[in-house]
Amino acid sequence: MAKIVRYERAGYIGYGELRGGEVHGLDGDFPNFSASSAPPVALASVSLLAPVMPSKIVAIGPGYRVYMQGGPEPERPYYWIKPASTVQDPEGEIVLPPGITVNHEAEIAIVIGKRARKVSPEQAMDHVFGYTCCIDVTAGDMADMLAYQQSQLFLDGKIFDTFAPLGPCIVTDLDTSDLRIQFRANGETRQDHSTSDKLFEYDRLVSMISHVLTLEPGDVITTGSVPGVAPMAPGDVVELEIEGIGILRNFAVQG
Amino acid sequence: MAKIVRYERAGYIGYGELRGGEVHGLDGDFPNFSASSAPPVALASVSLLAPVMPSKIVAIGPGYRVYMQGGPEPERPYYWIKPASTVQDPEGEIVLPPGITVNHEAEIAIVIGKRARKVSPEQAMDHVFGYTCCIDVTAGDMADMLAYQQSQLFLDGKIFDTFAPLGPCIVTDLDTSDLRIQFRANGETRQDHSTSDKLFEYDRLVSMISHVLTLEPGDVITTGSVPGVAPMAPGDVVELEIEGIGILRNFAVQG
Repeated sequence: MAKIVRYERAGYIGYGELRGGEVHGLDGDFPNFSASSAPPVALASVSLLAPVMPSKIVAIGPGYRVYMQGGPEPERPYYWIKPASTVQDPEGEIVLPPGITVNHEAEIAIVIGKRARKVSPEQAMDHVFGYTCCIDVTAGDMADMLAYQQSQLFLDGKIFDTFAPLGPCIVTDLDTSDLRIQFRANGETRQDHSTSDKLFEYDRLVSMISHVLTLEPGDVITTGSVPGVAPMAPGDVVELEIEGIGILRNFAVQG
Repeated sequence: MAKIVRYERAGYIGYGELRGGEVHGLDGDFPNFSASSAPPVALASVSLLAPVMPSKIVAIGPGYRVYMQGGPEPERPYYWIKPASTVQDPEGEIVLPPGITVNHEAEIAIVIGKRARKVSPEQAMDHVFGYTCCIDVTAGDMADMLAYQQSQLFLDGKIFDTFAPLGPCIVTDLDTSDLRIQFRANGETRQDHSTSDKLFEYDRLVSMISHVLTLEPGDVITTGSVPGVAPMAPGDVVELEIEGIGILRNFAVQG
């Protein structure tokens, strides 16, 4: 298990492995790294960046059984695309467009390490590099779900710039069977649930999506929000914490 | 006005300018080209590729007044993202996933030449490189539009691999006020309409989208289908012809 970060320090941008409070440099491009001979630097001395630059983010939903309210489970989720232009760094701003409701969705995200096209569930995990946190920011007034689903934002509310904060690191070889996912706004817990309730095992999810489109190294699959989706307000300090990965913190600002 | 192509010839992939039956090589990367000193090659000796590799395609709809049936015009269209993995070359296959209806949508596409973020309609055309043809392939049974809009494919029917053939060239400095757009399957005309009926002027469209997300050089905006959207069948030879641009030909095959 390794924690991989991308960071900026004094104008240099590179990858590193997080160990304790230090970042140990990595040479090479994602996902083929080798240890650098450069001395490690203090985590406090770097600015963390989104740990990967995906060619696309595939967002899915629903992702948890709790949403089914005891009813039948869907054969497959809905898929959406969030383009690379939605990616935001840890500690970066989430820019709320004027005049619309913007919600936080707390999600664990799969990071692809090897191109996947029509892979089986048995093959799928060979194509996964690791896991990170993603706030799948979504515009739209969800108070009336039917009205929301008939609104334009149901189709295009997920694609605004800064609507996909990613980070703080990618964790490899993570056991995702029962990880706690918490989301806080200004210290108040808004979402708190476990991956043990997931509707779709990740090997099945990667396989399903790879039968629709080709997943490239660095691509991200966000696996659906845990319950508690709610609006953000300008000035909110938001934190997505996933057990075993860490805390992704961002700042909601008025656009 | 220039017709820009991307092509492959004997293992070499590059850009060129189409003049008559010849491709004159261009040095440099999109969109900053300079004339190559290499001798021109015959168009017949090259394989045309999708003329650009977008980081994303932004698809919009509706794009034409005819769809309004005399009712009020929308303030803005819906937007969708088609990821780069949907791009297909001229003469390439459109792979029809098994068991679902797959439709052709004939569209003129805007190719971005310069990064655009929150640009005004007055500034927008400085960010446009030119225009090409795009078949915005869309899965879903549209015979019952209400049922379609409540189906999963309404959200994710546009993102399958090969669902965005682009080409055959990008035309710069094209007057798009009244261009005929025709779509044929096996020689039979299925769609035939003019850009003079467009709902949204392209400067306004680029401006609107640039207020949602950042458009990068090479990004593509497909401007909505002309009427006549209909299913394709395996074995269909399909042609999208746009006046002033050319004919984009592709082959529908069973996936």
